Amino acid sequence: MKRLLDPSSLRALARGCAVLGAGGGGDPYLGLLQALQATEDFGPVPLVDLDELPEDSLIMPCGGIGAPTVSIEKIENGDEGDRLRDHLEFLTGRRVSALMPAEIGGSNGLLPVAWAARMRLPIADADGMGRAFPEIPQVTMHLAGISPSPAVMTDERGNLVIFQTISGQWMERLERAAAVEFGGAASSTEFSMTAAQARGATVRNSVTLAIRIGEAVGRAAADPVDALIAEVGAFRLITGKVLDVERRTTSGFARGSVVVEGLGPDAGRLIRLEIQNENLVALERGRVLASVPDLISVVDTETADAIVTERVAYGQRVAVIAFPCDPVWRTEKGIMVAGPRSFGYDFDYVPVEELAGATA
Amino acid sequence: MKRLLDPSSLRALARGCAVLGAGGGGDPYLGLLQALQATEDFGPVPLVDLDELPEDSLIMPCGGIGAPTVSIEKIENGDEGDRLRDHLEFLTGRRVSALMPAEIGGSNGLLPVAWAARMRLPIADADGMGRAFPEIPQVTMHLAGISPSPAVMTDERGNLVIFQTISGQWMERLERAAAVEFGGAASSTEFSMTAAQARGATVRNSVTLAIRIGEAVGRAAADPVDALIAEVGAFRLITGKVLDVERRTTSGFARGSVVVEGLGPDAGRLIRLEIQNENLVALERGRVLASVPDLISVVDTETADAIVTERVAYGQRVAVIAFPCDPVWRTEKGIMVAGPRSFGYDFDYVPVEELAGATA
Repeated sequence: MKRLLDPSSLRALARGCAVLGAGGGGDPYLGLLQALQATEDFGPVPLVDLDELPEDSLIMPCGGIGAPTVSIEKIENGDEGDRLRDHLEFLTGRRVSALMPAEIGGSNGLLPVAWAARMRLPIADADGMGRAFPEIPQVTMHLAGISPSPAVMTDERGNLVIFQTISGQWMERLERAAAVEFGGAASSTEFSMTAAQARGATVRNSVTLAIRIGEAVGRAAADPVDALIAEVGAFRLITGKVLDVERRTTSGFARGSVVVEGLGPDAGRLIRLEIQNENLVALERGRVLASVPDLISVVDTETADAIVTERVAYGQRVAVIAFPCDPVWRTEKGIMVAGPRSFGYDFDYVPVEELAGATA
Repeated sequence: MKRLLDPSSLRALARGCAVLGAGGGGDPYLGLLQALQATEDFGPVPLVDLDELPEDSLIMPCGGIGAPTVSIEKIENGDEGDRLRDHLEFLTGRRVSALMPAEIGGSNGLLPVAWAARMRLPIADADGMGRAFPEIPQVTMHLAGISPSPAVMTDERGNLVIFQTISGQWMERLERAAAVEFGGAASSTEFSMTAAQARGATVRNSVTLAIRIGEAVGRAAADPVDALIAEVGAFRLITGKVLDVERRTTSGFARGSVVVEGLGPDAGRLIRLEIQNENLVALERGRVLASVPDLISVVDTETADAIVTERVAYGQRVAVIAFPCDPVWRTEKGIMVAGPRSFGYDFDYVPVEELAGATA
């Protein structure tokens, strides 16, 4: 066991997950409340390394799916994780040994902790993205050739759907349609695998990374944004205020854009962020400053707390930062699955170090 | 065993299913081709009475779901039934002993025969409607309190979805959304039950009834429409030609309306049929001539072959007939589930004998 996820580490985790969410993964505050309550009721959750788990033990990646704009109003019931686990065990004929966040970003980095507490299961120190992405096949397990099937989805009412599809694209299509019917958000598990498979198919130590980010920001004396930038190796794209937000919830996603106007040294500059649950690209006068799969986060200039896309609002004083994704996303296959073209943009991926680094 | 479903009885069955479909259930010609091929390949299918089956044997009601306008272009692969059966057996831990048409109407009265042939299983002489209805909970099993879960849905590509819902309405909502993603049509099973349950929860002998209707029309010498009317106890609402068809495929249904203009003795009359997969109501100058749950069928004036709603076309010479539904649909609960108000109409159900009988 690496550590126990107690209230203090959960608060740091929430802060780190917000930054790693790149605007997505749902508001970590809601996940934090659920994780705090569940660990108070059932005890702290052990965080374990994948190497500690027996090779053939079953790992259940899980979290919320849908539009984060919906998730802040339509709250989990608490027993979603139990239902996902029960049905996954029935389908595979095996016992789940540990939960894992499908994505470490946002509330989805914390929800599995709340569920694991109830089941008295550990959390594996890994995830499927090292950040948050909007679509189901956009995970490292998909890059590694692991099947998303059988997937299980449930809602807070107790409905349950199992998916066995011929491809990741079909999984995305069918799960998204079901999430829309559930009101725009639901809970799910896909890409279940053995610990042995997970060792080579996930972003390792990302729970620890998120906690470390949260702790670095928390103990920063003078300028938390600088501390955050130093911790994650980020580039500051702009410091200013939110000038305009356009946001709509459609087809199971939150889509839209945010315009940030520079203040102080950045006065006169305008940066536009385009959103599909996560911040996908940062543009200045049509020039790309950063793009998926690299991470773009909007953080409060005073506290360095990251602001999820559904909470961004006019007038907020923010810094926009961008930093490198996990190297797996920079492979040819990674860029194909989660690069700008996979989101419909007509330009090639260029690492943020080359783009923003040139101007920073 | 009541009989073997050989090519001659399958042809009669197709004719009867078209009439009992009330315009819906999919084009029986496509189901007939599949049933003829499957019985040629694997031998004729036994038709058995529910009383012949052991009490605890598992009955799988099944068929197509979606918009019949899509089903005539997007054809089944043939192995859908196998997948439905395999997964239903896995989920229930029991062996399926017989298939049953979820609805006897249209292609859905024949598709289970094609699937049963491949599996060398019998067909139970019963169905869940005694006709066709567009929505999943509109079956006699629902009236009898049997759960639609677990339901299994599959497409011709090999995708598979399992639904476990808290109500029939949620089943309808989730299955419909999945059918739309599949392109507008899919194959499914819901309301699996034991033979003992089925005896009190289905419309009995409806396969035999459909064959009898088909045979009566087939051997009619002079006027097949008169023979059909005599066989099912129908009222002739109008004889004329199709003047106008408005049809759209939306949200997994075929919706629209048909206007039939009277010819000969009916010259000067106009009847309007309103459609949601099936013919729901027949109106003349705003007056209701017949409505769900009673059956309204459009038949060719020469052959008495019923024309499904997706095949109705301008200029066809037709008779519109209406006849009583199974008594279970005339109970308070039956009317609530499948009466005019369940389809959004603001009028009460009046039996066709009282409505059309008054003018016939």
